[in-house]
Amino acid sequence: MNTIQVATQSRCQLVDITDKIREVVAARGMATGTVTVFVPHTTAGVTINENADPDVCHDLLEKLAHLVPHRESYYRHGEGNSDAHLKASLLGSSVRVIVKDGRLQLGTWQSIYFAEFDGPRHREVWIE
Amino acid sequence: MNTIQVATQSRCQLVDITDKIREVVAARGMATGTVTVFVPHTTAGVTINENADPDVCHDLLEKLAHLVPHRESYYRHGEGNSDAHLKASLLGSSVRVIVKDGRLQLGTWQSIYFAEFDGPRHREVWIE
Amino acid sequence: MNTIQVATQSRCQLVDITDKIREVVAARGMATGTVTVFVPHTTAGVTINENADPDVCHDLLEKLAHLVPHRESYYRHGEGNSDAHLKASLLGSSVRVIVKDGRLQLGTWQSIYFAEFDGPRHREVWIE
Repeated sequence: MNTIQVATQSRCQLVDITDKIREVVAARGMATGTVTVFVPHTTAGVTINENADPDVCHDLLEKLAHLVPHRESYYRHGEGNSDAHLKASLLGSSVRVIVKDGRLQLGTWQSIYFAEFDGPRHREVWIE
Repeated sequence: MNTIQVATQSRCQLVDITDKIREVVAARGMATGTVTVFVPHTTAGVTINENADPDVCHDLLEKLAHLVPHRESYYRHGEGNSDAHLKASLLGSSVRVIVKDGRLQLGTWQSIYFAEFDGPRHREVWIE
Repeated sequence: MNTIQVATQSRCQLVDITDKIREVVAARGMATGTVTVFVPHTTAGVTINENADPDVCHDLLEKLAHLVPHRESYYRHGEGNSDAHLKASLLGSSVRVIVKDGRLQLGTWQSIYFAEFDGPRHREVWIE
């Protein structure tokens, strides 16, 4: 298992971690198979989406903010970050990517994003 | 493949199955790698979220109930449980967790939850 | 890694690809383990849901269309398909299914669906 560090700057932010995952795959000498990218936090997630136009990340965060507002009358969790927990479950805690001939296999427009929903914080991502 | 049984008590309920998964990992003698936790049902899912404050589970179920109400004018599925099917797809049918030195690797606050959306029922979870 | 082709006919459509995945598993001679089904696109996803009543697929697409409308005042992405990107992240880019004795292990009512959100297009699905 490898660990990478992610320092986020905002409460909600998508951070492209594709290059860091590529470095781990190369350093481990993985040949063929799949790699799991796992987020060990409950107020952050991970997703794969477009890397070319940053407006896609903006739109994703905005839509999530509308679907899961920071405050709702029925939230009970006392820490005030229920929305972050809920967004984490909607996106999921891991993605799985194919490795072939030592290279991460992603579509042309795909990047892997760490999804911060309760930052800024220092976070970890685990890779196996 | 190992199977664990989950008996749910409500229509919508999150059941912490982390200890059961740990037992399977130990019994199988898994050393290092990843374990897949798969739900073979279409009206239930699985997610990873906070284990310390049960209010997080309450808030997750309430938010899903608001996003995907039990009834909508445009639902066509005759069994009256469209909401359960839709929530299952939003959370997903499997999670993947890293195993290292024979131990499940989860963040401090993470547990694995079976997500019942059309209970109470007897359910299965498959592990590989 | 194997590739299957999927030709979609509508902007939003769920295409049952279970039989194609079964063929790949058989052709590869997989015995026991898990198979990853990965979508290398950013405006399409993959999900597992009910195969018996097509109304479940209808209801899933309708609910997603209500949660993530084609147009929102705050979308910035210039291609006009922000909704497709967001739905892709909500469903996810991969599913993982257990293989036992050479056979895909799915629940009685489960099928694997390619989820098109910006078609019609020719799409690929990668399997490892």
